[in-house]
Amino acid sequence: VKSIITLLTDFGTSDPYVGVLKGVILSINPDVALVDISHAVTPQNIEEGAFLLATALPYFPRGTIHVAVVDPGVGTQRRALALVTPEATIVGPDNGLLSAALPDDARSRARPGPARVPLPPGFAAYALADPKYFRHPVSATFHGRDVFAPVAAHLSLGLAPRALGPAVRDVLALPPFRAVVHADGSLAGRVLHVDHFGNLITSVRGEQIRSSRVTVQVLGHTVHGLASTYAHSEGLTALIGSSGFLEIARSGASAARELGAMPGDPITVREA
Amino acid sequence: VKSIITLLTDFGTSDPYVGVLKGVILSINPDVALVDISHAVTPQNIEEGAFLLATALPYFPRGTIHVAVVDPGVGTQRRALALVTPEATIVGPDNGLLSAALPDDARSRARPGPARVPLPPGFAAYALADPKYFRHPVSATFHGRDVFAPVAAHLSLGLAPRALGPAVRDVLALPPFRAVVHADGSLAGRVLHVDHFGNLITSVRGEQIRSSRVTVQVLGHTVHGLASTYAHSEGLTALIGSSGFLEIARSGASAARELGAMPGDPITVREA
Amino acid sequence: VKSIITLLTDFGTSDPYVGVLKGVILSINPDVALVDISHAVTPQNIEEGAFLLATALPYFPRGTIHVAVVDPGVGTQRRALALVTPEATIVGPDNGLLSAALPDDARSRARPGPARVPLPPGFAAYALADPKYFRHPVSATFHGRDVFAPVAAHLSLGLAPRALGPAVRDVLALPPFRAVVHADGSLAGRVLHVDHFGNLITSVRGEQIRSSRVTVQVLGHTVHGLASTYAHSEGLTALIGSSGFLEIARSGASAARELGAMPGDPITVREA
Repeated sequence: VKSIITLLTDFGTSDPYVGVLKGVILSINPDVALVDISHAVTPQNIEEGAFLLATALPYFPRGTIHVAVVDPGVGTQRRALALVTPEATIVGPDNGLLSAALPDDARSRARPGPARVPLPPGFAAYALADPKYFRHPVSATFHGRDVFAPVAAHLSLGLAPRALGPAVRDVLALPPFRAVVHADGSLAGRVLHVDHFGNLITSVRGEQIRSSRVTVQVLGHTVHGLASTYAHSEGLTALIGSSGFLEIARSGASAARELGAMPGDPITVREA
Repeated sequence: VKSIITLLTDFGTSDPYVGVLKGVILSINPDVALVDISHAVTPQNIEEGAFLLATALPYFPRGTIHVAVVDPGVGTQRRALALVTPEATIVGPDNGLLSAALPDDARSRARPGPARVPLPPGFAAYALADPKYFRHPVSATFHGRDVFAPVAAHLSLGLAPRALGPAVRDVLALPPFRAVVHADGSLAGRVLHVDHFGNLITSVRGEQIRSSRVTVQVLGHTVHGLASTYAHSEGLTALIGSSGFLEIARSGASAARELGAMPGDPITVREA
Repeated sequence: VKSIITLLTDFGTSDPYVGVLKGVILSINPDVALVDISHAVTPQNIEEGAFLLATALPYFPRGTIHVAVVDPGVGTQRRALALVTPEATIVGPDNGLLSAALPDDARSRARPGPARVPLPPGFAAYALADPKYFRHPVSATFHGRDVFAPVAAHLSLGLAPRALGPAVRDVLALPPFRAVVHADGSLAGRVLHVDHFGNLITSVRGEQIRSSRVTVQVLGHTVHGLASTYAHSEGLTALIGSSGFLEIARSGASAARELGAMPGDPITVREA
């Protein structure tokens, strides 16, 4: 079966950077299938990158290799890792981005994080240490091209991850994408991402809401109840989106523009 | 021969939605070739989606499977279809988008449409009814991921379209992309799309214009004659573009910005 | 081994134009790997297109076929060529864009160019003359679809470049992307490209700078010294970027926005 390598970066698509990653990969494995997840992560926003990667991971076949590069620390001492999960391998910097592939209960409890956490059972990680699998010379500013892409290509050819370098026992992880539950039962979350349609995607998980009779407060607006589709809505609507997170939407328009909302804005959910 | 699946949506490319469609498809058929047609359809603009798809269809090999998702009614009772033409199969919502693959004389005569039309000879359509070919659980808001992408992937493996569900006899169609001919011989069209260069692409078909000695009126400006290339033009130029539609262009600049033009703006063509 | 065709254009990605090129290519060779380098070249900016292509070429495997279309002269008498280098084949208009694949010492000495230069040893070029390898009818405005894409697809199937048309001895070339050295040893360059991060990528080559003790002047600002990574910087930083050119960056922010910089702006480097 053909190998798949996905790419998620903050490189944008106007420069040749993404094409260059693909050229490097195809130079090593010309038969791999390449898939872009997103290159529009806000530059150097590790949390947003981890969130977008987390929402995409479940939809790729077992054995997929994901290259994730949101890497403000490139050229410093931050580690580069291959994280092997029961489902996939993620190659990228050890800066919190790899949280995307960790189960919630293995992630940091320190907020706003990140913090170093031990790997859960069934997971392994290897430092990218053996320069045999890099592209040379290795630039100080573009490890996507010189380290992560070639390592992923070698893995797609069947290289064992442990050949890359020493096993590591812990990785840097962000807290789970999940609202905080207050003593009165209310949920305190925040906007994690504004999507192309202007929907606000929040850290409140659908499974944290026990009834559709809720009141949602966001930026001075109050939304009553949960809708089941975008189509039935009038005005601002709250619904559980297709990735399982509470979204604030506006049918046929941008909720983000209407509210002036941005990632980080707080949201509160109360059962009615 | 390798199967091809194309994707046309209003999802944008900044979110992982398109990558997720590809992950779902590759999970079912890892050997398919995936091609993006456009993900920049104006959100929920079915007519623009149909027009962009129509201009791309002729350039793909026979047997290509096209996934088209501009779907404001997702989660409602609108049907989901696979439309089989002599050249291709188009998978998407039955909301007018599939007009792209119907010949002009089979499309709606009701303006501005859409209206339900019978399928012409050589065409067939099947309701996407058998949940065996869906991804589960099926979300109420993302049928691209849970219905259209997996159905297209199964078709690319050779599944017979009639296995998907009951045959349907009619589909929702928009009127043809074609100017109205007035009694005095003038053509009344409108701007269907503004492209990346700022060219106005209109509903006036090249074959509707019998001579290059024409006068074009658009937004208070008058353009005389038809040019044959962008390079020879000065000021606003009218020419028959590469897809066979009348365009208003400005060499080295954006005609749309100069005119303040938008989709829907009227245009009139008179023989001189 | 699977053939690779890359695409670099000024078409943008919102219209179906790029998807159409891919449909045409896959209609001829369904098994080719397609890679986008960039479709965000400033419309009709040949020099920027040549620069972006030049920075991507070294990262693709030997034998890759590159389709480059920034073609303000489409439909005029400008030639269409396949340029065969020791590493790759580049298909596109003969307007300076193909400079990307010529060594510096073979390029124009006329500034700002372009000028016609003889091909260096080991290089060959063929006019695209035999209509057998075109798509018909050939439109006057979209040779990407009707000439360059089908020619590249035929080459990817093994067609000998000399079958395309007569050999040509010279091509139109831009001067090298390299600063001018003044008598006092200072380097006079300019901004060639502003990347997605707002970094200014200039025509000053890293190898032209002999020491990291330099003073860089750009738009009224003075930057002292060269950094080695983006991470270590505060304020404006000068560094040699991953493609070997001097860049002006600002850690975590856009240098271009801070300076109001645009392609063409001058930059001066002096050894301290």
